[in-house]
Amino acid sequence: MQNHVEILCVGNELLIGKTLNTNAQWLAKRITTLGLEVKRITVIGDDVDQIATALQEALQRKPKFIITTGGLGPTFDDKTLEGIAKALNRNLETNQKALKMIEEKYRSYVQEGKLEKFELTKHRVKMAKLPEKSEPLPNPVGTAPGVLTHKEETKIIALPGVPAEMKAIFEESVAPILKKEARGIAFFEMSVNVEDIVESEIAPLIDKTMHDNPYVYIKSHPKGAEKTPRIELHLSTTAKDSTTAKKRITKTLIQISELIRQKGGKVKIPKTPK
Amino acid sequence: MQNHVEILCVGNELLIGKTLNTNAQWLAKRITTLGLEVKRITVIGDDVDQIATALQEALQRKPKFIITTGGLGPTFDDKTLEGIAKALNRNLETNQKALKMIEEKYRSYVQEGKLEKFELTKHRVKMAKLPEKSEPLPNPVGTAPGVLTHKEETKIIALPGVPAEMKAIFEESVAPILKKEARGIAFFEMSVNVEDIVESEIAPLIDKTMHDNPYVYIKSHPKGAEKTPRIELHLSTTAKDSTTAKKRITKTLIQISELIRQKGGKVKIPKTPK
Repeated sequence: MQNHVEILCVGNELLIGKTLNTNAQWLAKRITTLGLEVKRITVIGDDVDQIATALQEALQRKPKFIITTGGLGPTFDDKTLEGIAKALNRNLETNQKALKMIEEKYRSYVQEGKLEKFELTKHRVKMAKLPEKSEPLPNPVGTAPGVLTHKEETKIIALPGVPAEMKAIFEESVAPILKKEARGIAFFEMSVNVEDIVESEIAPLIDKTMHDNPYVYIKSHPKGAEKTPRIELHLSTTAKDSTTAKKRITKTLIQISELIRQKGGKVKIPKTPK
Repeated sequence: MQNHVEILCVGNELLIGKTLNTNAQWLAKRITTLGLEVKRITVIGDDVDQIATALQEALQRKPKFIITTGGLGPTFDDKTLEGIAKALNRNLETNQKALKMIEEKYRSYVQEGKLEKFELTKHRVKMAKLPEKSEPLPNPVGTAPGVLTHKEETKIIALPGVPAEMKAIFEESVAPILKKEARGIAFFEMSVNVEDIVESEIAPLIDKTMHDNPYVYIKSHPKGAEKTPRIELHLSTTAKDSTTAKKRITKTLIQISELIRQKGGKVKIPKTPK
């Protein structure tokens, strides 16, 4: 419970429904499988005050990590670092390590013929202006570096919005930090499909099974409308090690399957658990 | 600005990354095209306190509408109405209109042979327990009704998490309410693809164009990494009527295209504007 994480996605394109927030899902899944718990995802626009306010609210809930996506690029509406600086009451300063990373990128673009000449314009230098007391995180596939800073016990990590860049920085620099915090906690999940029974008939069976298996979370997901009963049951747990987690899920699955069959439902268990 | 909307998505499946939040995108797009502004999207777990807290925070920002998705079904972890009741300091009570809707659904399932016998179990009655002073919204494709209530100037609308049900209730009961609030405000957007120029070279051109066209918002979306320059430019505006909105976008597009061509970039304009 103390190991909780918040995700803060910045971008007007998410608020007008232009872009599907695949970043939030990808991050949530990766963080969960690393053994930490995502407690909240917030999406806000490209606005310094909105970013600062949302970040301050998140900080008050004292998560271990706040991970932001979007708003690190060279354009006027890339405002995440300004928002973070405002929330933390710090200045933006040109970070020499970040500037060197960016310089090297643009020099390589010139060498590869993708850019005519090298020039450190103000829009490029902007990507190296980090809140005081921050570390840049190398971007293996793009230009804008990620950023790591902290406020008291909370680490704040800013990642770009371009999915390939966000994922590359996460895998290279962020996953190792999260893994250390999780200290070997293992998440395990499994889904089965249930047919010939409506959700309201399964509800009391889930109640009973979860009562008998307090560490397992069972959630029913109706697929389509309830009048064509096809329900996915999703079982998940977090344990000290993966053997314990798998054993728990298996025991729970056997119990609920038996209850569903008694009510005339069919349970389709995948041959190899994911 | 006063016409702003917040979306609150409830569901552990979103926080563990099991489910991609297509509901938030669909709602954001529909609300935007109806002429209202989505200011924030929040995702929280199936937890009464988390739902109540997030709702109270949203209410303090005084939006016209708060639309929730998920957590209206018959199972133990469908907690949205309990969360709303807690946030508003109201009791849950069996709403007779909602109960009748649910009863009719289950009777029809029995007639269609999808359910053996009709019975109002406690899990089914649960879907009719609404916060005091609420109205049920008919669900044309599923069982759980949507819910409409309000707190001072803010209307709170609860929709199911199953996408087909969420969309059906929105179109039938929610869109007409939103349309009335928007009072003819028209949103218009257009995208063009830009090649042979990097994002940091486009940044100052966007600055200039937006300065000259203050009602148009331009955002650049790098596709892939910046070293393979392919950038989508997205132009959007909100105006009193759609003719004004379209004219503005066209004028702005001509200006920025000219600037990009002068820098050696290519602009690919779709033949028919969306």
